[in-house]
Amino acid sequence: MRKRSVEVCLTPAIYHRYENPEAIVVVIDVLRATSAITTAFANGAEKIIPAGTVEEARSYKERGFLIAAERDGNVLDFADFGNSPFNFTKEKVKGKTIVYSTTNGTQTVQKAESAAQVLIGSFLNLQALIQYLKNSGRDILLLCAGWKGKVNLEDTLCAGALAYALLMEEEFDTNDDAVHIAVDLWKQARPDLLRYVDKAAQRSRLREKGLDDCIPWCHRIDVCDVIPVYVDKEIVSFNAVKHGLAALQS
Amino acid sequence: MRKRSVEVCLTPAIYHRYENPEAIVVVIDVLRATSAITTAFANGAEKIIPAGTVEEARSYKERGFLIAAERDGNVLDFADFGNSPFNFTKEKVKGKTIVYSTTNGTQTVQKAESAAQVLIGSFLNLQALIQYLKNSGRDILLLCAGWKGKVNLEDTLCAGALAYALLMEEEFDTNDDAVHIAVDLWKQARPDLLRYVDKAAQRSRLREKGLDDCIPWCHRIDVCDVIPVYVDKEIVSFNAVKHGLAALQS
Repeated sequence: MRKRSVEVCLTPAIYHRYENPEAIVVVIDVLRATSAITTAFANGAEKIIPAGTVEEARSYKERGFLIAAERDGNVLDFADFGNSPFNFTKEKVKGKTIVYSTTNGTQTVQKAESAAQVLIGSFLNLQALIQYLKNSGRDILLLCAGWKGKVNLEDTLCAGALAYALLMEEEFDTNDDAVHIAVDLWKQARPDLLRYVDKAAQRSRLREKGLDDCIPWCHRIDVCDVIPVYVDKEIVSFNAVKHGLAALQS
Repeated sequence: MRKRSVEVCLTPAIYHRYENPEAIVVVIDVLRATSAITTAFANGAEKIIPAGTVEEARSYKERGFLIAAERDGNVLDFADFGNSPFNFTKEKVKGKTIVYSTTNGTQTVQKAESAAQVLIGSFLNLQALIQYLKNSGRDILLLCAGWKGKVNLEDTLCAGALAYALLMEEEFDTNDDAVHIAVDLWKQARPDLLRYVDKAAQRSRLREKGLDDCIPWCHRIDVCDVIPVYVDKEIVSFNAVKHGLAALQS
């Protein structure tokens, strides 16, 4: 029997080399888009609409939507708030629809839309994702948002954590060197993840802007079991344990 | 004083994000192009002309040149020999000009031609390169040929070995996460490099074709001190120790 494949695409710039309409794609942008999206759903958000461009986000604003938007870490002037997961509190997001636009993460979600299913991945919902992916019966592509077409450390590590767990199962296999790179880095980082990512370029960028307070949160593992999924150009959430395969088959 | 930067571009597909006309680019294609080129010069080759396309290589053949050419590991029918470094023996190459075309490596060399200087890197000439790069006064970009737009393990490791040595020096610095990825993998692999690369996808590809006999050779460190350099669309070699900076300044 053919084993299910696990692959890691280290930057969206090479996504066309990995594109597979039969696979589930997990988009990973640890600092900060996918951590913020996961946090928003854990706090009861109803729906998140990714907006790729600033203009698109602005036009939603004019139609009365709640807007979270940044470029290079800076909150856009017309936005209600920026990209820190700490903005997505219960008070602000419970039951709400949020339009969301970021430097790398939201475009990456849109780029993957031809896949069988597009999920939002982060350290925060790691175990829920792993369970869901195991049960899905699909090939898995872990797509790192990276930084403006380059690779980054924190997304690579999160992809490594997911790939490592999947490849513990007999039914998965890989012939993608990026998987080995991500998994072996994850093994190295995991005893003290937060200390390891101290050297990440994005940490320095956020620190320079005083926006690094969310870094420990974004590297906490398994704080919630939401699985945000991108369907019909919107992100909604389902609970892995309750709905599992049914959601994929619907 | 500004420190000199070290960066690692893990695949030529994202080279445009790193392009820097002031930097020295080291092209790395361990299995097998840059190992073969290094071997050829160690065995006294006069000159290597990279040919990006099969058609270009064929037209050189018609003009009487010695041709080394492969695609996906298979020797092209009109070529004199293929891509194994073991083809580039003293008997075959001493004093000769060779036209060379491969799946990834030779196109990558051509892609980098806007750089201040383009060098050919491999494990075989590691220390010679490190000395040369230290003395060059330039920013350094380590460009992995990868595999058809994806990343690969062996080129990442070789870039890691070079970056690791450069960053030991006070004058170098990096804010490129790909450097951390490459260096930390190198640290993990170095105690038993050959065993570590056993999982590389390219090793399996070569083994399936019975072409994996050259893998130990391609991972031997410091067997020669030639530094092949791409100048005016041709690769020639100079000895790092003898010529050093002068070659760059000429």
